[in-house]
Amino acid sequence: MQKKRIVVALGHRALGTTLPEQKRATEKSARAVADLVEAGVNVVITHSNAPQVGMIHTAMNEFQKLHPDYTAAPMSVCSAMSQGYIGYDIQNSLRAELLRRGIYKPVATVLTQVTVDPYDEAFYNPSKVIGRILTREEAEAEEAKGNYVTEVEGGWRRIVAAPKPKDIIELDTIQLMLDAGQVVIAAGGGGIPVLEQKEELKGASAVIEKDLISGLLAEQLHADELMILTSVEHVVTGYNTAQPSPLEKITVAEAEKYMAEGQFEPGTMLPKIEAAVDFLKKGGKRAVITSIDKAKEGYLGRTGTIIE
Amino acid sequence: MQKKRIVVALGHRALGTTLPEQKRATEKSARAVADLVEAGVNVVITHSNAPQVGMIHTAMNEFQKLHPDYTAAPMSVCSAMSQGYIGYDIQNSLRAELLRRGIYKPVATVLTQVTVDPYDEAFYNPSKVIGRILTREEAEAEEAKGNYVTEVEGGWRRIVAAPKPKDIIELDTIQLMLDAGQVVIAAGGGGIPVLEQKEELKGASAVIEKDLISGLLAEQLHADELMILTSVEHVVTGYNTAQPSPLEKITVAEAEKYMAEGQFEPGTMLPKIEAAVDFLKKGGKRAVITSIDKAKEGYLGRTGTIIE
Repeated sequence: MQKKRIVVALGHRALGTTLPEQKRATEKSARAVADLVEAGVNVVITHSNAPQVGMIHTAMNEFQKLHPDYTAAPMSVCSAMSQGYIGYDIQNSLRAELLRRGIYKPVATVLTQVTVDPYDEAFYNPSKVIGRILTREEAEAEEAKGNYVTEVEGGWRRIVAAPKPKDIIELDTIQLMLDAGQVVIAAGGGGIPVLEQKEELKGASAVIEKDLISGLLAEQLHADELMILTSVEHVVTGYNTAQPSPLEKITVAEAEKYMAEGQFEPGTMLPKIEAAVDFLKKGGKRAVITSIDKAKEGYLGRTGTIIE
Repeated sequence: MQKKRIVVALGHRALGTTLPEQKRATEKSARAVADLVEAGVNVVITHSNAPQVGMIHTAMNEFQKLHPDYTAAPMSVCSAMSQGYIGYDIQNSLRAELLRRGIYKPVATVLTQVTVDPYDEAFYNPSKVIGRILTREEAEAEEAKGNYVTEVEGGWRRIVAAPKPKDIIELDTIQLMLDAGQVVIAAGGGGIPVLEQKEELKGASAVIEKDLISGLLAEQLHADELMILTSVEHVVTGYNTAQPSPLEKITVAEAEKYMAEGQFEPGTMLPKIEAAVDFLKKGGKRAVITSIDKAKEGYLGRTGTIIE
């Protein structure tokens, strides 16, 4: 019997930001993923990169101010760098955890690009917050460069467009590795966003929502399940009310009804539900949203929010 | 008949340093590699990263000085980032060049780690120059942190150990892709140097010579050929004499004799010959060293230094 195939999405909480944080966080995430591998699942891991890509972007651009012979690094290039930065820790933590359990399985990171539509409405309405908090002067300097900022508690932050993912350029490679039973880390940070211009791919100043790319990847790989690991055990309805109510097993129709009612927090839980619903409507069997600590329990159907 | 398999190593000249330089250089390199693919060869690409990893290392560490809540990024982490930075441009340039020629072939970058021996004598004698030229103050600051520097024309530069490569951690993935006829970009910058400590891999403060890893990779993949593309059409003997003499076809025994005589420049040509000789002694059929412009001519045996 063919092994079950799951795309596992790791959120910000599963990764940390700085090097020591990321090391500790990926060790914990590795235990969760190793539980699935040990249970006989073939896994593709996706992950977010918002704080990391912000850190790299700031570093590269502050460096450029001091050394004008270098060029500033656009978001797409920083995204490529962040896939190296984060993939390195995830693959090593997981490799070590598997070896400690006596499991030998190749684990590797594939640099992944994802096309977006240049006419995606997100480009006219940037919404994704990236990088650290800026001072007023820094925010003004960003605006002078043509970038967008938004005021937040304590200062300003840069915002970029979050267009919908279209095609995964390295899909054939990811599929090949999955079919061979290798653990793949792919589409880090939602993938490097690129625009297709004739034969070329041009980096886009954007960030792709990692939940959406995870759903699309699961669909295109014909995976059985999509598992989104986050900081909470259950999705709740009425997130902004006095009595939020945790969801256990729900149907796609129920998920759609709750979405239409605005029951899920935009920018955090809503894209997870959207990704799950899209995946299930296009042939996926099950989507599980739960906390990193509960990954195995969620896989076994004992906890988490399960959409079928 | 199985297609011929070649590991192609791209040197610094094939890549440039800053973003616009790298874009132009990888477009040229892509034409050279596309010529080989068009001739029916399955290709694995390796590449150097010395200027890029230096740039990233400086950027991350200058950023950290301004934002002490972040941590400095060690060489191993910067190497991972440089594989993303460089792989992104190489894979896109090659993908576009192949598409322009009507060839559809997956091209993907695999984050690659390479183990080194903690007792490698290179750790006691760092020799590999990295990063930009430093002022006296900067050089002293590096030394205060326990890093090594060396005086060069115009200032100082950091030097790190260049230990020999042992094992390629992601070999199974690279082999899988090569067997499937995909173009693989791997072992960028010589691979991320790591030390094996029980089940874990720890980043090493080192740089692996890209020619040596290219030879080892060619050997472990059971490739037919190793092709090292550099800035000159032929290797010369007597590099430091008034009349250097270009080499055309030579045997392994001749190459070893010239090495023993000190005919090749250490740090540039010598490691290329060493890599070629090692590969050929362990089962490789042919090694070609020539310029990027002459890749196809070299493959056809019409120019370059060919060792058999």
